[in-house]
Amino acid sequence: MSIAYFNGSFMPPEDVVIPLSDRSVFFGDGVYDAAIGSNGKIYMLDEHIDRFISNAARMDIRTVTKERLKEILENALLLSGENFAFLYFQATRSLKERRHSAFGCTESNLLLTATAIPKPSPERTLSLSLYEDMRYFYCDVKTLNLLPGVLSATDAEKRGFDEAVFHRCGVVTECSHSNIFAIKNGELYTHPSGRMILPGTARKRLIEIAKKEGIVCHCIPFSTEFLLSADEALVTSSTKLCLRVGRIEDRIFTIDDRSIGTMLTEKMHMEFEHFFL
Amino acid sequence: MSIAYFNGSFMPPEDVVIPLSDRSVFFGDGVYDAAIGSNGKIYMLDEHIDRFISNAARMDIRTVTKERLKEILENALLLSGENFAFLYFQATRSLKERRHSAFGCTESNLLLTATAIPKPSPERTLSLSLYEDMRYFYCDVKTLNLLPGVLSATDAEKRGFDEAVFHRCGVVTECSHSNIFAIKNGELYTHPSGRMILPGTARKRLIEIAKKEGIVCHCIPFSTEFLLSADEALVTSSTKLCLRVGRIEDRIFTIDDRSIGTMLTEKMHMEFEHFFL
Repeated sequence: MSIAYFNGSFMPPEDVVIPLSDRSVFFGDGVYDAAIGSNGKIYMLDEHIDRFISNAARMDIRTVTKERLKEILENALLLSGENFAFLYFQATRSLKERRHSAFGCTESNLLLTATAIPKPSPERTLSLSLYEDMRYFYCDVKTLNLLPGVLSATDAEKRGFDEAVFHRCGVVTECSHSNIFAIKNGELYTHPSGRMILPGTARKRLIEIAKKEGIVCHCIPFSTEFLLSADEALVTSSTKLCLRVGRIEDRIFTIDDRSIGTMLTEKMHMEFEHFFL
Repeated sequence: MSIAYFNGSFMPPEDVVIPLSDRSVFFGDGVYDAAIGSNGKIYMLDEHIDRFISNAARMDIRTVTKERLKEILENALLLSGENFAFLYFQATRSLKERRHSAFGCTESNLLLTATAIPKPSPERTLSLSLYEDMRYFYCDVKTLNLLPGVLSATDAEKRGFDEAVFHRCGVVTECSHSNIFAIKNGELYTHPSGRMILPGTARKRLIEIAKKEGIVCHCIPFSTEFLLSADEALVTSSTKLCLRVGRIEDRIFTIDDRSIGTMLTEKMHMEFEHFFL
């Protein structure tokens, strides 16, 4: 059963009433984050909450404390009764008058939803399309200004792909709503953090696991040509964890059960499973 | 009295209920436009409606016909009873499930508000701050992904300015929510239309009026240095029409009642006033 929370109350998602004063409606003026919960536990909860609180502060949106947010998320997971739940939460600025400047605005809304999500499977492989990265330069903040992600993901689905890979002036950045890694000659490559990509929690965990396994990980920009000529590619996100790429446009990647990509994918999913025990 | 319209019904703005399925809430997935109405007439109505319909089509959002929208806007103006009304309208994609891809999604919501606005005065001069243009490359579409506009306008107000001028890598693009012109040696300069700026209706009208007056108008990119060393600067928008700039950061512009900027400002406001008679 899906459940929602808005400014202090739990309710069915269809009962949530967003007023016009919620500046998501006119400006996309808000930040969000999302995590996976199961068996009363939330995976990488601190990382998600810390990022959310820090993103809200960067956009000067006042929201609840870390402790209070934790409590609400745990209650939402419990009330949803879902085996695997996608916990989505967003803080939006609130101001009655429609004006661009939010100077002096201290009010905000907190919205949460807990919905069923399939348990991520390491077996699934992804097909990706290529899409020009037309996004702005706040890609490191999880804001609600997500139209380029919407347009690229829509184009990907329309063309029969699972997701799109963004490339900005020939440099691969990330996917519509995931991070991407290339593996070449036994080493891992991903775009450096900074204004061009979202510093994903699963991206961070994959880099840590790779290092622990003695695999060199380069956080450097690389081209679409480099990606297409890589031995393997991996996609990370909170909901997919880590998945191998089977195809990018016309380039087919061979899925090898003894490859580095497969080993890393399995380690990520194993750690995830153990967390919820 | 302010009035709102949502999907077929008129109501007070505070009664509007945006459901979670309205993708403005999670993605800023919508387009908007706005016009000024008075005495039963709406200024540059065709231009605003045509841009709105074309922006919706570019984002693949289905909305009402031009004729129907005209009718709703005219009713909203009438019902508001305002002397001068700001008519704001937006079309947002509607989908129950929160997912980036909107493939196959044909539902949309239409929201309108009519609120009182002061009659624009040609006497007012504007003070502007400078702000780095961190926006994406869909600036020519009036979408709800407006955070960079929000951040720049907030910074401007915080620092005591009326609005901010965006500059992208040193090139002046436009303001937080207006277009900008420089006047140098009797000629007019503004950023060319394309992906970097919004093709404003007041911008278009100012160019037409300038041409009619025999003033050369260059639609070419120019630097912040060029703007700061200009003889005059003008700002255009649907709500301000055309206003002279009194200051940009530390640079003070002398307001001369016999200048080209003053003449153009007065012509714009005069035409606007005559329209409503």
